[in-house]
Amino acid sequence: MFDAAELGQRVTKSDFKKRELDLRARLLVLQYRTLEFARFPVIIDFAGVDGAGKGSTINMLNKWMDPRWVRSIGYHAPTQEERARPRFWRYWRDLPQKGRIGLYLSGRYSRPLLGRVYGGSDELEFDQRLAEIIRFENALVDDGALILKFWMHLSQEHQKARLDELSADPLQSYQVSDGDWRNHKNYEGFIAAAEQIITRTNRGGAPWNIVEGVDPNYRHLRVGEIIAAELSRHLDAQERKAALAGSAESPRVAEPPAADPTTVFDSLDLSQTVARRDYKKKVREYQAQLGDLGRKAFDKGVSTVLVFEGPDASGKGGAIRRTIWSLDARTSRVHQFAAPTDEERAHHYLWRFWRKMPAAGFVSVFDRSWYGRVLVERAEGFASEDEWRRAYNEINDFENQIVDRGILLLKFWLHISEEEQLKRFKKREKSPYKHWKLTDEDWRNREQWDAYELYGHDVVQYTSTQKAPWILVEGNNKLHARLKVIKTVMDHLGERVGGA
Amino acid sequence: MFDAAELGQRVTKSDFKKRELDLRARLLVLQYRTLEFARFPVIIDFAGVDGAGKGSTINMLNKWMDPRWVRSIGYHAPTQEERARPRFWRYWRDLPQKGRIGLYLSGRYSRPLLGRVYGGSDELEFDQRLAEIIRFENALVDDGALILKFWMHLSQEHQKARLDELSADPLQSYQVSDGDWRNHKNYEGFIAAAEQIITRTNRGGAPWNIVEGVDPNYRHLRVGEIIAAELSRHLDAQERKAALAGSAESPRVAEPPAADPTTVFDSLDLSQTVARRDYKKKVREYQAQLGDLGRKAFDKGVSTVLVFEGPDASGKGGAIRRTIWSLDARTSRVHQFAAPTDEERAHHYLWRFWRKMPAAGFVSVFDRSWYGRVLVERAEGFASEDEWRRAYNEINDFENQIVDRGILLLKFWLHISEEEQLKRFKKREKSPYKHWKLTDEDWRNREQWDAYELYGHDVVQYTSTQKAPWILVEGNNKLHARLKVIKTVMDHLGERVGGA
Repeated sequence: MFDAAELGQRVTKSDFKKRELDLRARLLVLQYRTLEFARFPVIIDFAGVDGAGKGSTINMLNKWMDPRWVRSIGYHAPTQEERARPRFWRYWRDLPQKGRIGLYLSGRYSRPLLGRVYGGSDELEFDQRLAEIIRFENALVDDGALILKFWMHLSQEHQKARLDELSADPLQSYQVSDGDWRNHKNYEGFIAAAEQIITRTNRGGAPWNIVEGVDPNYRHLRVGEIIAAELSRHLDAQERKAALAGSAESPRVAEPPAADPTTVFDSLDLSQTVARRDYKKKVREYQAQLGDLGRKAFDKGVSTVLVFEGPDASGKGGAIRRTIWSLDARTSRVHQFAAPTDEERAHHYLWRFWRKMPAAGFVSVFDRSWYGRVLVERAEGFASEDEWRRAYNEINDFENQIVDRGILLLKFWLHISEEEQLKRFKKREKSPYKHWKLTDEDWRNREQWDAYELYGHDVVQYTSTQKAPWILVEGNNKLHARLKVIKTVMDHLGERVGGA
Repeated sequence: MFDAAELGQRVTKSDFKKRELDLRARLLVLQYRTLEFARFPVIIDFAGVDGAGKGSTINMLNKWMDPRWVRSIGYHAPTQEERARPRFWRYWRDLPQKGRIGLYLSGRYSRPLLGRVYGGSDELEFDQRLAEIIRFENALVDDGALILKFWMHLSQEHQKARLDELSADPLQSYQVSDGDWRNHKNYEGFIAAAEQIITRTNRGGAPWNIVEGVDPNYRHLRVGEIIAAELSRHLDAQERKAALAGSAESPRVAEPPAADPTTVFDSLDLSQTVARRDYKKKVREYQAQLGDLGRKAFDKGVSTVLVFEGPDASGKGGAIRRTIWSLDARTSRVHQFAAPTDEERAHHYLWRFWRKMPAAGFVSVFDRSWYGRVLVERAEGFASEDEWRRAYNEINDFENQIVDRGILLLKFWLHISEEEQLKRFKKREKSPYKHWKLTDEDWRNREQWDAYELYGHDVVQYTSTQKAPWILVEGNNKLHARLKVIKTVMDHLGERVGGA
């Protein structure tokens, strides 16, 4: 695979100067077009053999382009904060905004590669790591991102010569670490693992380019010219797509479903109630246990994510308050989501939820969540059909990563009947301190009751997975709903941290 | 001090229900006025005796107000990430946006108090901690924030009764920790320290309110009513102020200074040069040493903040690139600052810089910085005279906190002559890959050359402190400037981590 990158290609200094001038001007024009268009981020990864000039290439790109819109980010071993979150948390956090460029060193490919070379991970784990990367890249590519991956190559001989040369020069020896020599000794294994990585993750939307790293002039021009060509192609395609989308007269909002569709919610017995006296007794008991469990979970570093969805006025806020009541306010956070900020809007829709993953031992409560993509965004046409359809899969993947990190994830769907909602709306209207809860939007959403029931049905159908099942809560009786929520959290947390 | 909060004040259930209804409606109206006005954040702190109901009061406020615009945040011992940054980093990060409300538990007062009670800090350190808090609060109050601080009180007898009562009830005992009993045994010392804290940090813009905590009904109403009264008063005052500012016909931009003012920059010998051959030799040598030092600094966890200011085209970008060239790209970040995002705009101007403080062992480079407040914002009238004048002090305080945390802070002012700037502008205009660096704004700023020299002079005069002196760099010769910057970083880092 790497033979084609061992040809000893070089560019003379005078040639370099000429081509550099032209390339620089092209890159800048493309960078500004991308910035102005502002519809997709550019993600450029550098991996490869030590000594092949990854760092110097990043420096050169920073010199060539307008550095205000370029971020260069490298990764070390995960910090304490990073280890508490799903593995991709740090990569999500560091994504560039749409219109901007991110250059990544020792990024998501680094640890799978080293794990494979040094025996830390077996074939199966290696496979899983690569599959995770592909899902991550797919989600971004589907959202329009341009991902370019460069493997900077040196033959074993060239690598040795390079490391020897650097080590011998007291002014350059700082560039060589023990790890570099260790990797050199493992060159065969390193290259074998790299071949697998490149083969399996080389995809249309996120291609690998192998670049010969011996001659700095050659590699800098080569990388720059590939970026210019790919960025130009991607810009043309995306601009065309945007123009087409603008001219198409297709209806943005899906057809309303048939009246009163049959859904998973039909099987709920919404008539369930609890007597107030029983409720009072039990809620105190549950909260006491939950208080204990919360403390244990914090001590053990077990984090929790609670998600609440359901129609307007289904009692999400009340259930959340009673649930976190007995948890330590210092270790629990409730997140509600208003309209996205401009920074959030300039990222993939999952980005703002990734940011809220709890620290070790903390509880993050989501009062509405990433499911907005397949509920309100679907209903209002903010997401295209293609976007919301693939979102189920993206969401399942996101939740898998949460669960795989050992975080307790519970998803509650609080459901009420159409009549019960009307009753609550009317009560809110009259209340001097609850009418703020009722907006015109709520009435508008109510008109789409059947559609929302169907969208909720789809949510349960497509995202109730073994790892992250939905818990449907009969909400017509608030006391019943609250008890069920608290007890469920208590039971699952108890299982996790070893009983109250 | 606390006698007045040991009166046994109670509110009956029926009375509570009546007053709650009215209070809730008032709080909501005020919350929405604050949100719509969106000119100041509301910061509400809860401290006090264990068992006095801090947590339950926060829960009640969350119930009473629209929780979408309220954040409740409590603090534990600092995490690894937090310990690497200045002490107030976490409090800055968690500030609410303008228009929103933050409720804080065990916040900035908690550790000074416990440190005093348990002998961890002596009188001097205690004083310093309180002085830091006052400076933090002053900076926010000056910016318009409303800060309210509640001390929830119980007498020693009542505290004992409360803790006994909770401990005896298996359903409530989870609320009592060993720490609570320890604090109870130290009640006298706890109260003595609290008295000092309250006395010294009770200020007009950030008042303390002592609330008797025995009866939940009483304390919830009392806190709620104080918030309503203070928020109403603050809103009136701020709205009046905004109306006045809008109607005043005063010139927003300061008078231009006399032509060619005498400044600190006059004493710079801008004619200094370095021969290219010498430069090449030395820059390699310095970069090698810096590369070594950077690795040592990372191993030792020594963080670095580099600030670059100076006229347009003074060579900041080039000097930065050569400086970080030999540093590990995985541990250094260059921050440039375009127009603030809407989230940044909704905070104190220092907020976005606080966010960029480096992790342990990392290097953060600021290509332009918080000095924008006293340079471009002063020049363009974006900051009022009062705002930029007090900014020197705020900046000194900010930098003190950076230095006190053991972070290496170096501030470079790259200076060039007016003629040299013109030469570079003209060269940029002609270059196919540098003309993007030249904007209309640069030409406009150039017209204000004398003003900017004066503003720069003021910057050096007011913010060149012993802990954080300015390093003036003669920039007419780029090679000289780059060498001086790299050597300075090298020397200071060498001093810090024990020589190259």
